[in-house]
Amino acid sequence: MERAIGVIDSGVGGLTVAYELMRQLPNERLIYLGDTLRCPYGPRPELEIKAFTWEMVNFLLTKHIKMLVIACNTATAFTLQELQEKLDIPVIGVIQPGARAAIKVTKTNHVGVIGTLGTIGSEAYATALQTIKPEIAVTSLACSPFVPMVEKGILQGEQCLSVVKESLLPMQKIKKMDTLILGCTHYPIIKDTIQQVMGPKISLISSSEETARETSIILEMKGLLNKPNEVGNHEFYTTGNLETFKKMTHRIFAKRMESIQPITMYRTVI
Amino acid sequence: MERAIGVIDSGVGGLTVAYELMRQLPNERLIYLGDTLRCPYGPRPELEIKAFTWEMVNFLLTKHIKMLVIACNTATAFTLQELQEKLDIPVIGVIQPGARAAIKVTKTNHVGVIGTLGTIGSEAYATALQTIKPEIAVTSLACSPFVPMVEKGILQGEQCLSVVKESLLPMQKIKKMDTLILGCTHYPIIKDTIQQVMGPKISLISSSEETARETSIILEMKGLLNKPNEVGNHEFYTTGNLETFKKMTHRIFAKRMESIQPITMYRTVI
Repeated sequence: MERAIGVIDSGVGGLTVAYELMRQLPNERLIYLGDTLRCPYGPRPELEIKAFTWEMVNFLLTKHIKMLVIACNTATAFTLQELQEKLDIPVIGVIQPGARAAIKVTKTNHVGVIGTLGTIGSEAYATALQTIKPEIAVTSLACSPFVPMVEKGILQGEQCLSVVKESLLPMQKIKKMDTLILGCTHYPIIKDTIQQVMGPKISLISSSEETARETSIILEMKGLLNKPNEVGNHEFYTTGNLETFKKMTHRIFAKRMESIQPITMYRTVI
Repeated sequence: MERAIGVIDSGVGGLTVAYELMRQLPNERLIYLGDTLRCPYGPRPELEIKAFTWEMVNFLLTKHIKMLVIACNTATAFTLQELQEKLDIPVIGVIQPGARAAIKVTKTNHVGVIGTLGTIGSEAYATALQTIKPEIAVTSLACSPFVPMVEKGILQGEQCLSVVKESLLPMQKIKKMDTLILGCTHYPIIKDTIQQVMGPKISLISSSEETARETSIILEMKGLLNKPNEVGNHEFYTTGNLETFKKMTHRIFAKRMESIQPITMYRTVI
């Protein structure tokens, strides 16, 4: 069997990246690990995020993955560089792909970023954007209530709308901004509500879609793409409650489940 | 001075890639070579296209470029693999970026491709699309009148509309297609007319924008990105008439010229 792509996340947000990987790279096999037991990572101190991320990485290395996708913005902000330096497989995070897509899309050169407290505090998106294009203006906002809301399964409806509305109030006042990066992999799950609140003129950038595309580029460049019809079952692991995790996975993947390779789900201790 | 990105094209079509490179990577310096004297490449035999492309590449290698962008679909179709094998700098073409973007965008898994006779005949887009995602259906169409029309400077108006309408007639009958790849770097110049003819429901993919974005990824991965404020003047070369080339460059870049680094233009023999 061909080697798999490893995907790590603090919980279920990374499933949006996993789904895009399965959709854009249907010949590839995934091994996903969501640290739902210790989610959210956003408000945790840097050292703890680093330690937890290494625990996840070490688990996946025992599965002989050929590439690592850090499908969590907070973990990317604090560990990407270190992992790229220390591992001998390609490592990609979710921040640079989102930044590059925003640079491509924005016409006003004013980009907004929403994410967890950790991601926003790290200024990783502003750095990624301005390293490539210094004239980009960046407005950042931490939306702390979003991750716990999504992990509870509140993905639409009145309560969701009111939380999103209230959190995004400061963003709606930024006149020149034309592009908003969903700087947390949980946010694409409530993308429709965010678009409704921000209005149709704002282009939303989903790090998940963009990261899947950049994974495709890197696998091709390194000659690591699977050949068609070699796909085995995907393996999805959670450190938390297996039933909750199964329910959320089915909910996020919705009806698309039948069109993808079978997924086997496990609970694990790391 | 930092080393430049080399860009080659059969004529002025590659200027759309050059423009996107300057917009998305404002810290980088370009050396562009357009073989306007021998344009179009589309209807030429494979061996001739290969020979002409190597002549362009050899010219740019004397300028110590750090990366090569083949901004011509026809040249990419016939020479990308060979150039990637033989050069010791990263080489990128315009076909794979367009294919990957189309895979990201399509919801119906039915993608259209328009290009020159050479590009369409090579089936390079169908191969690129189906290698990554075998279930993608591809409908291809050669639009031979577009390149000569654009090189003549007919970029809008009645004549342009009627040529585009007539050429795209077979494409408009494909019901399930939701995404159309502009598989020739001349085509983004008449993108508005193509969109008008195809209607708002079809997503147009510009290889130019996508190639610039993938160039950004590769430069970052290889640690080759320039630091801010180190940009020298861009150099643009044509093998044809310098005045015509200058006029076309100004026309394609339009008012955006003031916001980019100065360009020095030369006529050259290769």
